[in-house]
Amino acid sequence: MAYDIFKDLAIIIIAAKLFGLLANKCKAPQVVGQIIAGLLIGPSVLGWVQQSEFILEAAEIGVVLLMFSAGLGTNLKELKETGPVAFLLACCGVFVPLVGGTLLYMGFYGASPFGTEGFYRAVFIGVIMTATSVSITVQALKELGKLQGKTGTTILAAAIIDDVIGMVVLTFVIGFKKPDANPGKVALLTLAFFAFAFVVGIIMYKIFQIVDEKYPHSKAISIAGLALCFGLSYIAEHYFGIADITGAYVAGIILCSINDSKFIADKIDINSYMLFGPVFFASIGLKTNISNITAEILLFSLGFVVVALIAKIIGCGLMARCCRFSGSDSLKIGIGMMTRGEVALITAQKGLAAGMLEPVYFTSVILLIIVSSISTPILLKMLYGRDEKKQIA
Amino acid sequence: MAYDIFKDLAIIIIAAKLFGLLANKCKAPQVVGQIIAGLLIGPSVLGWVQQSEFILEAAEIGVVLLMFSAGLGTNLKELKETGPVAFLLACCGVFVPLVGGTLLYMGFYGASPFGTEGFYRAVFIGVIMTATSVSITVQALKELGKLQGKTGTTILAAAIIDDVIGMVVLTFVIGFKKPDANPGKVALLTLAFFAFAFVVGIIMYKIFQIVDEKYPHSKAISIAGLALCFGLSYIAEHYFGIADITGAYVAGIILCSINDSKFIADKIDINSYMLFGPVFFASIGLKTNISNITAEILLFSLGFVVVALIAKIIGCGLMARCCRFSGSDSLKIGIGMMTRGEVALITAQKGLAAGMLEPVYFTSVILLIIVSSISTPILLKMLYGRDEKKQIA
Repeated sequence: MAYDIFKDLAIIIIAAKLFGLLANKCKAPQVVGQIIAGLLIGPSVLGWVQQSEFILEAAEIGVVLLMFSAGLGTNLKELKETGPVAFLLACCGVFVPLVGGTLLYMGFYGASPFGTEGFYRAVFIGVIMTATSVSITVQALKELGKLQGKTGTTILAAAIIDDVIGMVVLTFVIGFKKPDANPGKVALLTLAFFAFAFVVGIIMYKIFQIVDEKYPHSKAISIAGLALCFGLSYIAEHYFGIADITGAYVAGIILCSINDSKFIADKIDINSYMLFGPVFFASIGLKTNISNITAEILLFSLGFVVVALIAKIIGCGLMARCCRFSGSDSLKIGIGMMTRGEVALITAQKGLAAGMLEPVYFTSVILLIIVSSISTPILLKMLYGRDEKKQIA
Repeated sequence: MAYDIFKDLAIIIIAAKLFGLLANKCKAPQVVGQIIAGLLIGPSVLGWVQQSEFILEAAEIGVVLLMFSAGLGTNLKELKETGPVAFLLACCGVFVPLVGGTLLYMGFYGASPFGTEGFYRAVFIGVIMTATSVSITVQALKELGKLQGKTGTTILAAAIIDDVIGMVVLTFVIGFKKPDANPGKVALLTLAFFAFAFVVGIIMYKIFQIVDEKYPHSKAISIAGLALCFGLSYIAEHYFGIADITGAYVAGIILCSINDSKFIADKIDINSYMLFGPVFFASIGLKTNISNITAEILLFSLGFVVVALIAKIIGCGLMARCCRFSGSDSLKIGIGMMTRGEVALITAQKGLAAGMLEPVYFTSVILLIIVSSISTPILLKMLYGRDEKKQIA
């Protein structure tokens, strides 16, 4: 029945808020508490709420709203400045985990020569590690009030680019098994999307600016903004094969320079923190059933998590240091980039469909998502806290 | 795919807003435009958006948020004063349509003696006509700024009570065909719910008041309010068999006297007008496929609509006049009560399941929902506008 969702939603938003406040008391960001709340109320522990189609879609809206809001808060000038650096960071942040994951698998199960089945299986473990999921970092930086700084903008831009590179790598690797996937086509579609977004963006920006000046602070402007966000999310994924969150982020960037960008962001944030945000973060915990893990998988998973996290810190952190970020900021960027999320799961699902991954490795992916989602906000908060102490001293 | 909903949502919120503004230009309330937008983009005309599980559930959230917000805006003192009158109105507003619908069916297809199959089929047409759907009236009164007045409160209270009576009548009538439905049990459960809500309400009110005074204007208070709304919606329907919207309205009434009731209502309204509200109103239009109506059904449907509307105006309007409302206010009450919505559809579905209704009559029900949903806000606006002109003159 339609009313069944009310039970799930009531439990999710209350548990997420309670554990969010509890996390705050323990000096950790709220988002950590929300993920733990999802784990607790989900099938792993209490079993009060099950993953459902509606929760899945509400969570998708949640992550899209989050990225839209991040886009709305972008400083366009800063983004232009960070763009080239972010590209370098993203490349390094894809390459190091790709190699690290491949070596990990070969270290566990023995090396296979290039071109064999075993070789691609190993590479695929690396592929899963490539895509950063920036939403949790965004939320953590937002709570810390550091989303708009140079470091925050760099992380955000690098994570967006890294998603695209990750997608190209995925299609490339699968392309060796499947003849219909064409890496060149993927790269072309990606370029086409950004060209499309650029043209549409300029037109939309002009229209929004005119309407906004005529009717400032209107309901219509925030609804139209939301529609643009949903529209670009759909177009990105449906016509160009790019993640919907990239479309949402681009929609935010298109509107970030109109007068009412903060007005729209406020409305989006209310929709986000009341319902869709908690549902998204709790759903990460809900997806997980930690009760059926074997010792062997646990061991591999531990290695998988450690390699995935360190590879991002090394890849992005070192490159950041090379690009003249301070040591402390480089570490923040490396840690900010180490979060993985739904893209890793999507990649794993594609690997499963292509026969390049056993379902048992999903546990590793989910563990990586949880560990990175919980540790990143805590570490970021510690690092920023240390900086502030230094400034005061 | 999960991202498919973004297309639907983008189209719905943009179309609903555009037609809402257009309706405003034509001096009609926005909600009329939103329903027409749903008709246009739905299967009847353009076919851009199909009814989906997600839309259905988001629409349910929409109507629940609407009723919660209406409850939050309640003046408790006024509700206590209007209670007895509202009860009389509701009884009359159920009785007249019940008789009217029965006579209409008998007039069309011939009278059947009491207790026969044909007799119950006739009665069932009356049963469908009984339940007022107050959500559209609420939205219309809200737009007019008349929700809090005596007339508004009376309509709201009467519509809530009328839902309950309608439910009892439905179970009563079906009880003659099905042995497991027990009208006495329904009445008892209804009483039990209000007793439960009263006790929980007092406890919740105290808790919210204490927390609110300690942390005024906090995110936590609005999230907790929303959770209470969802929780009571679920409990009402799941454990007591009462419509979820009644639970949501009661949740609003519980919180209507805390300091931050307006603060919570503002947050709920933003969630409502950005997304869930337009989805709910557009979904009424979406449910409809007006392209496959035959002449015979059309004729019956016309009679059905006319009888259903007039019966409510007579039933509620006359009783209001007897309870010393002015002629103009009585008419407003009668017209405010004539809207039908999802409860009529649910009733029809139950009748179908019990073998008391042919599926072809769904067209009549949907036509009634659309005509009443569109005409009520327009008529109410006209009536209130006439009053204001008189006051100015």
